[in-house]
Amino acid sequence: MEKIILGIDPGTRHMGYGLIRASGSTMQLLQFGVINLTKFSTHELKLKKIFERISALLDEFAPDEVALEAPFYGKNVQSMLKLGRAQGVAMAAALAKEIPIVEYPPKSVKMSVTGNGNASKEQVAYMLENLLKTKLESEFLDATDALGVAVCHHFHGNNLHAHKTGTKKGWGAFVAENPKRVK
Amino acid sequence: MEKIILGIDPGTRHMGYGLIRASGSTMQLLQFGVINLTKFSTHELKLKKIFERISALLDEFAPDEVALEAPFYGKNVQSMLKLGRAQGVAMAAALAKEIPIVEYPPKSVKMSVTGNGNASKEQVAYMLENLLKTKLESEFLDATDALGVAVCHHFHGNNLHAHKTGTKKGWGAFVAENPKRVK
Repeated sequence: MEKIILGIDPGTRHMGYGLIRASGSTMQLLQFGVINLTKFSTHELKLKKIFERISALLDEFAPDEVALEAPFYGKNVQSMLKLGRAQGVAMAAALAKEIPIVEYPPKSVKMSVTGNGNASKEQVAYMLENLLKTKLESEFLDATDALGVAVCHHFHGNNLHAHKTGTKKGWGAFVAENPKRVK
Repeated sequence: MEKIILGIDPGTRHMGYGLIRASGSTMQLLQFGVINLTKFSTHELKLKKIFERISALLDEFAPDEVALEAPFYGKNVQSMLKLGRAQGVAMAAALAKEIPIVEYPPKSVKMSVTGNGNASKEQVAYMLENLLKTKLESEFLDATDALGVAVCHHFHGNNLHAHKTGTKKGWGAFVAENPKRVK
């Protein structure tokens, strides 16, 4: 079954996004990019921008599912709160349109895309270029990660309950509560 | 000028809310309550519930502004991320409807309501009962804080640029970027 997947690599300075259309072993790159948040002077304006841009992407491409790269945990509680808010706003844009959200830890993304959970960013980018038959410029590294999580989600797509990540319970429960949303 | 203000005390286990209609020295309690999030098994479902409930309150009462109690910073980065997400989702519900959001630190709320930045929860509740001419039950302590931040915002309302909190810049910038939203 063909699906459109929006991958998001959330951050408070840059938020990467990547959209693919996928069906079985066929994947097509639809769009990718980076939302630059550094030009906004306040946290409120950044959040507003995230919500607007993610909502616009959802309107334009109508993805079936959203895949999010789960964060590394930093040491600074204030940054973690800000990151959480940025992620919450992005997630809310999907929740508002009743689009399921799935999270994957960075290691799972690397493992899915390259077969190696400790692959470098360059290796991930290289594999994505092959899988999506596209040249990815290095200035879009955040978008590369977002595409990676979209591809990772597609690879997990036929076996949603089986993947061994922290999100298993979350997704399982989401499916249980939202049977109509699951293809 | 009469305004409806939604105060929110955001949390990952309970989210308090309080709505007031205010004009000059007249304040009227419209509704208050606590969204209990402990019954939801996953973080995703909690976020979905927060978004739905806050959106429903915004639809029902059409507040002119949303006031948020800014958090204490905990020590655990994982909890801070979760709290941030919960706050982000609540903020996004307001952003989606283009309703301005203002944050106040707990100290400012206590100072506004009681004249003492170190007042106890009981003192805040007592003053709110007098200001709003309502009996507040102790099981709704989270809602009391939410009402407190709504009242605090009303007291700051005629002098938005003058309050000496960390949110001054945020609000000033928001006003500058959203002149139509400011009465």
